[in-house]
Amino acid sequence: MDHPVTRASDGHTHVTFDDGLALECGTVLRPHTVAFRTYGTLNADKSNAVLVCHALTGDQYAAETHPLTGKPGWWTTVVGPGRPLDTDRFFVICANVLGGCMGTTGPLSINPETGDPWGTDFPPVTIRDMVRQQKRLVEHLGIKRLFAAVGGSMGGMQVLQWAALYPDALFAAMPIATASYHTAQNIAFHEVGRQAIFADPDWAAGRYWQDNRIPARGLAVARMCAHITYLSEEALTRKFGRRLQNAPKDPTEAIDLFGGMFQVQSYLRHQGSTFVQRFDANSYLTITRAMDYFDLAADCGSDLAAAFKGTRTRFLLASFTSDWLFPTSQSRAIARALNRAGANVSFVEFPTDKGHDAFLLDEPDFHRTLAGFLRGCAVHASLGA
Amino acid sequence: MDHPVTRASDGHTHVTFDDGLALECGTVLRPHTVAFRTYGTLNADKSNAVLVCHALTGDQYAAETHPLTGKPGWWTTVVGPGRPLDTDRFFVICANVLGGCMGTTGPLSINPETGDPWGTDFPPVTIRDMVRQQKRLVEHLGIKRLFAAVGGSMGGMQVLQWAALYPDALFAAMPIATASYHTAQNIAFHEVGRQAIFADPDWAAGRYWQDNRIPARGLAVARMCAHITYLSEEALTRKFGRRLQNAPKDPTEAIDLFGGMFQVQSYLRHQGSTFVQRFDANSYLTITRAMDYFDLAADCGSDLAAAFKGTRTRFLLASFTSDWLFPTSQSRAIARALNRAGANVSFVEFPTDKGHDAFLLDEPDFHRTLAGFLRGCAVHASLGA
Repeated sequence: MDHPVTRASDGHTHVTFDDGLALECGTVLRPHTVAFRTYGTLNADKSNAVLVCHALTGDQYAAETHPLTGKPGWWTTVVGPGRPLDTDRFFVICANVLGGCMGTTGPLSINPETGDPWGTDFPPVTIRDMVRQQKRLVEHLGIKRLFAAVGGSMGGMQVLQWAALYPDALFAAMPIATASYHTAQNIAFHEVGRQAIFADPDWAAGRYWQDNRIPARGLAVARMCAHITYLSEEALTRKFGRRLQNAPKDPTEAIDLFGGMFQVQSYLRHQGSTFVQRFDANSYLTITRAMDYFDLAADCGSDLAAAFKGTRTRFLLASFTSDWLFPTSQSRAIARALNRAGANVSFVEFPTDKGHDAFLLDEPDFHRTLAGFLRGCAVHASLGA
Repeated sequence: MDHPVTRASDGHTHVTFDDGLALECGTVLRPHTVAFRTYGTLNADKSNAVLVCHALTGDQYAAETHPLTGKPGWWTTVVGPGRPLDTDRFFVICANVLGGCMGTTGPLSINPETGDPWGTDFPPVTIRDMVRQQKRLVEHLGIKRLFAAVGGSMGGMQVLQWAALYPDALFAAMPIATASYHTAQNIAFHEVGRQAIFADPDWAAGRYWQDNRIPARGLAVARMCAHITYLSEEALTRKFGRRLQNAPKDPTEAIDLFGGMFQVQSYLRHQGSTFVQRFDANSYLTITRAMDYFDLAADCGSDLAAAFKGTRTRFLLASFTSDWLFPTSQSRAIARALNRAGANVSFVEFPTDKGHDAFLLDEPDFHRTLAGFLRGCAVHASLGA
C-alpha cells in the first residue's frame, strides 16, 4: 500500500481528515477519523478495490482476529484467499462506520470544543453521511472507482447509498439482506433497544464515561431483543427448541421451574453479556437511528427508481427465505426499482432457515453466487486475473 | 347468583378457598383467592356457563369498564348482550389467573408465613395450576359442566388444558390464536422482557414493594418488546409507516434527527408507560414463565393427540393469517392432533393484517364464526334458547 496510515493510541489503523465532513443534520465534523483495515493488494491501476460495508454492530475487522474479542473476523467466510472476495485478487477495504466505536469518529471520540467525549452530543448521522465519509477514505487511498461495494443489512443500505450517490465510482454493487428503507417494525425493535439503554441508570443521560461506568444491563437487553430478530423461528427451534439446562446459581433465577432454564435463555444472556464488552451504548443509539432514518426513495420524490436513474453499476441483490427482519419482499422491491431504472440487476433469494444472520454464516450457495457474480463483473470490467 | 362472594379490601369480587391448591412445583398455596367477574345469569340447571380465559396481561374485567384504567373491558367486542358470547343467553365467567395482580393470589398477595407480599418467593405456577384453580371456582359456583371455555393466546392455552384435564366438564372449547407449547422464539421474547425487569434497579431483586417503588422502566421495556410481537409488520406499516411527529421536549430525545421522532416510537412509549400503571412486575415474571413452561404434549409422551384421547368436547380452533407470535401452523398442529384423537373439531384461519392482537379487535368474520359455533353447540347440548 502506497498511502500513509497512522496508528491511533487505541491501536486502530486509521486516517484523520483535518478538513470537515458536513453532515446531513448541518453539523460539520472537524476533524474526522476513519478507522479501517485492508486485505490483499491494490493493483497498479487501482482497479481491484472492493469496499466491504459492515452491519450495525460490525466493524472493520472483517477478515482477521478481532482485537477485543480474540474471535475470528465477522466475514472470514467471505473475505480471504480463495474466498468469494478473494484477497489474492481483490484489494478489500473495510472501514468502521461514522458513529461507530472502533476508531472512527463517534460518540466515544473527543469533542474538540469541550475536550470531553461527544457522548449524546454527537450529531445524528445518516447512512449517507457514513457513505460520504467512506468516499473520502477511498479517495484518500487513491482509488477513483471501486470495483465493487458489498454489505449485508445496514451494510447493504450503505451499498445502495453508494450506488445512488456515486454511480460512476462503483462498478458493481452487492446489497445483501437489506432494504431501501427501515419499516415501522424495524424502527419499533430499535426503539425497544434504545429505551432499554435509556432505562439503565448507568447510562447517566449518556455521560456514563464520566463515572467510568457503562450501561451494561440496558445495552445487553437491547442486544438480546435485536438478536432474536437476526434469527428465524426455525433456527431457534433447531438450535434450542425447548431443551433445558441447569440454571445458574443466581438467586434471581431461583424461581425458574424445577431449577432448570431453557437453553435459549442462557444463549440470549450470553449474547447480551459478551456484546457489552465490545460495543459502546451511545454508538448503538447513533447507529440504530441512522438505520431508522434510512429511506432512499424519500430523497427522490418517493420513487426509488429515480435514485438509480441512468446507473451503469451492475447489481447483485441477495435475500434469504427465513429473514423476517429484511424479508425478500424488500429486496424484490429494490430489484423492481432497479429494473425500472434500466439497471443491470441480478436477484437471488437463497433458501435457508438461518434468518437474517444467514449472510454472516456458512451458506455455500450464497458464497458461490457472490464469487460467480464477481468473476463475471471482472470480465466486464476488464480486470486482469 | 346464589353463591357467596366477598369483597376484598382492594375491591375485586373474589372467593377465598381455605383449603390448599397443590401446585405442580410441589408447593401448596393455602389459602388461595380467585378474583372473578360474571356477566349474564346462570340458568336453573346451570348449563349455560361460559368460561373466558384471559391472556398474559388481561384480567377478569372482560366486558365492563376497567377499575384502574377506566377503559372498556378487553373483550367487549365478544362478550355482552347480542355479542357472540351473548350475555342474554350465557352466564359468562372470567377470572384473574393464578399469579395475576388483579385480586387472585399472586406475587402481590401476602405470604401467610411472613406477613409480607410473596414477591419473587411466589412459587412458579403453570397453565395447569391456573386451570385447576379455575375448576375450583367453577365448582364453587355450583357448575358441574361448562358449556364452553374460550380464550386467546395464553387464554387459549388454558382452554386446551381444560379440555385435556376435564373433558367431561367441558362441552365446547374455543382455543384462539394459541399453541400447545411455547416455541424457542416465544421464550426468547419473554426472556428479553424478564431481563429488562431484572435490569431495573427499582426491581430490587423483586422486593420493590419494600420501598414503595415499582420497576417502571424495566417493565415498560418488557411491554414494548412484547407489544411488537402482538402486531404484524403490515399493521405497523398501515398505522404508522415512517410518519414523523414532533419529539417530546425531553433532553434524552434531543438528538433525534431534525427534532422529529417516528410515530411508532411514540406509540410504543405510550404502550409501555400506561402498562406499568396497571400491572405488577413480579406477576409479569410469574405469568410469562407459566407460558414458557407450557407444553401440553410433554405430559403425554410427546403425543398431543393422547392429551385429547376419547374427548367428546367440541372444538373450534381459530387463527389469524398475520399472527407471527402464534402462527396458523401452531393451530393446525393442534387440529391435526385433535383429528387423530377422533375429536369433533372445526378450524378456521381468518385473513387479517392485525397480527396476534386480532383476537381482541373488531374482526366481524371471527365474531360471526364464534357466534355460529356456539349456536350449533347449544343445539347439540340441548341448551334452551
